[in-house]
Amino acid sequence: MTTVFDESSDGFQAVRFDGKRLELIDQRLLPQEERWLRIDQIDAVIAAIADLVVRGAPAIGVTAAYGAVMAARARGDDLRGWLTDMQRLEQARPTAVNLAWAVARMREVTVRLGRLDSDALADEAYRMHRADIEANRTMAKAGSAVIDPGSGVLTHCNTGSLATGGIGTALGVVLEGVRSGRVERVYADETRPWLQGSRLTAWELARAGVEFQVLVEGAAAALMASGKVDWVITGADRIAANGDVANKIGTYALAVLARHHGVKMMVVAPSSTVDPAMASGQGIEIEQRDSAEIWRAAGIESVPSGFAAWNPVFDITPAELVDCIVTENGVFYPDYDFSQP
Amino acid sequence: MTTVFDESSDGFQAVRFDGKRLELIDQRLLPQEERWLRIDQIDAVIAAIADLVVRGAPAIGVTAAYGAVMAARARGDDLRGWLTDMQRLEQARPTAVNLAWAVARMREVTVRLGRLDSDALADEAYRMHRADIEANRTMAKAGSAVIDPGSGVLTHCNTGSLATGGIGTALGVVLEGVRSGRVERVYADETRPWLQGSRLTAWELARAGVEFQVLVEGAAAALMASGKVDWVITGADRIAANGDVANKIGTYALAVLARHHGVKMMVVAPSSTVDPAMASGQGIEIEQRDSAEIWRAAGIESVPSGFAAWNPVFDITPAELVDCIVTENGVFYPDYDFSQP
Repeated sequence: MTTVFDESSDGFQAVRFDGKRLELIDQRLLPQEERWLRIDQIDAVIAAIADLVVRGAPAIGVTAAYGAVMAARARGDDLRGWLTDMQRLEQARPTAVNLAWAVARMREVTVRLGRLDSDALADEAYRMHRADIEANRTMAKAGSAVIDPGSGVLTHCNTGSLATGGIGTALGVVLEGVRSGRVERVYADETRPWLQGSRLTAWELARAGVEFQVLVEGAAAALMASGKVDWVITGADRIAANGDVANKIGTYALAVLARHHGVKMMVVAPSSTVDPAMASGQGIEIEQRDSAEIWRAAGIESVPSGFAAWNPVFDITPAELVDCIVTENGVFYPDYDFSQP
Repeated sequence: MTTVFDESSDGFQAVRFDGKRLELIDQRLLPQEERWLRIDQIDAVIAAIADLVVRGAPAIGVTAAYGAVMAARARGDDLRGWLTDMQRLEQARPTAVNLAWAVARMREVTVRLGRLDSDALADEAYRMHRADIEANRTMAKAGSAVIDPGSGVLTHCNTGSLATGGIGTALGVVLEGVRSGRVERVYADETRPWLQGSRLTAWELARAGVEFQVLVEGAAAALMASGKVDWVITGADRIAANGDVANKIGTYALAVLARHHGVKMMVVAPSSTVDPAMASGQGIEIEQRDSAEIWRAAGIESVPSGFAAWNPVFDITPAELVDCIVTENGVFYPDYDFSQP
């Protein structure tokens, strides 16, 4: 049985599958504790996705594919039972596009064969995982090549090996930039409210031996004014056909601040993130989360009455503020046309 | 014995003195708990300032003045002992300008009289407190009059009655704007790393019965893009002669974002904040705090090795991004000349 592993990832990979068992690092406990969960049945996979043990759209997709394999092994030739498993799996986080996409791919294999074949599903899952690793490598090389030697970069949220099957998207570009000597200074937004930057990106950078500094989002403008940042580099949750970018809340602020300071803005995401059916970012609905999350994520469990928050998860960065978009198909510049690199 | 109280403050005042005893609300416990500390000796005043029971430059100044009175009552005619107390008092937080200023005023009274007179010191302390209340009221009226009816405002950090002797500076303008019907929507940045916005400003607004929404700093740009904000209103820690503003980290980011979105920027601070000896913001040194604070203030006590942060406390907003500066002397517009309103 093959094990998919990214040789370029410094020995770390957040999602591992040995053919029977899935290993996931529990991202909820990072950076305080590195605990690996060993999972060998579909219910535990669904729980891990729902409870944010694993997060990041590509990492969720790969996890779900391996979950489908484990479900098939358990179900034998009970196709109906497996399809029920798949329905529950894709509902683990209903808004994650990659989750539905991965489950759909596994269903297609089964439909094509007309029966449940766990080895065929495993082959497809490995293929998906390898493709993600390869796309990450390609983006890391293409994106970092655009950066001038001696540059400083600022990233947002977590887009590294914890969020993907491989080296990462935006963080992959940062790491490859450091390795190639083009990036000399690495800054990471802490990324409120969930602190993916100060918890996860910081953990990945420290693990990779890269020097970095975390900052609160409010300090990004002052950092740019100091002249230490040349590029803002982020991932994307969805990219409209015109190049408008939906990404973690705070990305749009960075884009505006970057333009004001003459800092460039790069967005790194696999081509599957581009939604050709979405003409512009205006059509993208932004999820609003519970007010109390703002206080809870700051350690205040009991929120006083009368307290309310405006808590959007994503924002939209208009294409005109984005200097380039990197996918596995190459580097795209305005005006964006994703049909040709 | 007089008690200084601001009738316009809805019955709340963070610093109270009845002639013998000081009452301070413990700001470290807000919003979870409203605990008042009753203090009748100088050591406890020094500890309260050093330990951030009371914060905000004007509130610290008033607290120190009352502390000087209590020290004088305890010392009788032991002038030398009182001067030692004053030295320790002004070192409780060495960087707080208002603290040194308040202690200097109390020393001047003693020098003028040639002896320790606790009643004369009390008169001076009451005068300082009343002047602060009066300045707050004047700024609140002048600043809110500039705002068009039906406006939305976004404020940063805490500049209300917890930070001053009266109704507040920037938050005073917001509250007066709500009362006068000019302000219809109130937003408050949570203000990382210390969360003065989501803890203290939220507490004050809820207490005043004002509807509001807190947001993470990263969401401010998206909020402005939604068209719901007309004014950003902040306080100031120091204002240079040319109108450059040093204030809590994140203020400069708001100023850049405001200009990009056609939102106006108002800074509200007593005239004592203007430093005529400082030609521009370039000369103002920015305090950097410990890296670990970023994680500790997010509830992560044990910071892994290799983790580092860039953690400036203040930033500088250039005068050209500030639409008006409000002091008790009136509303100032560019080009700034604080010698005449």
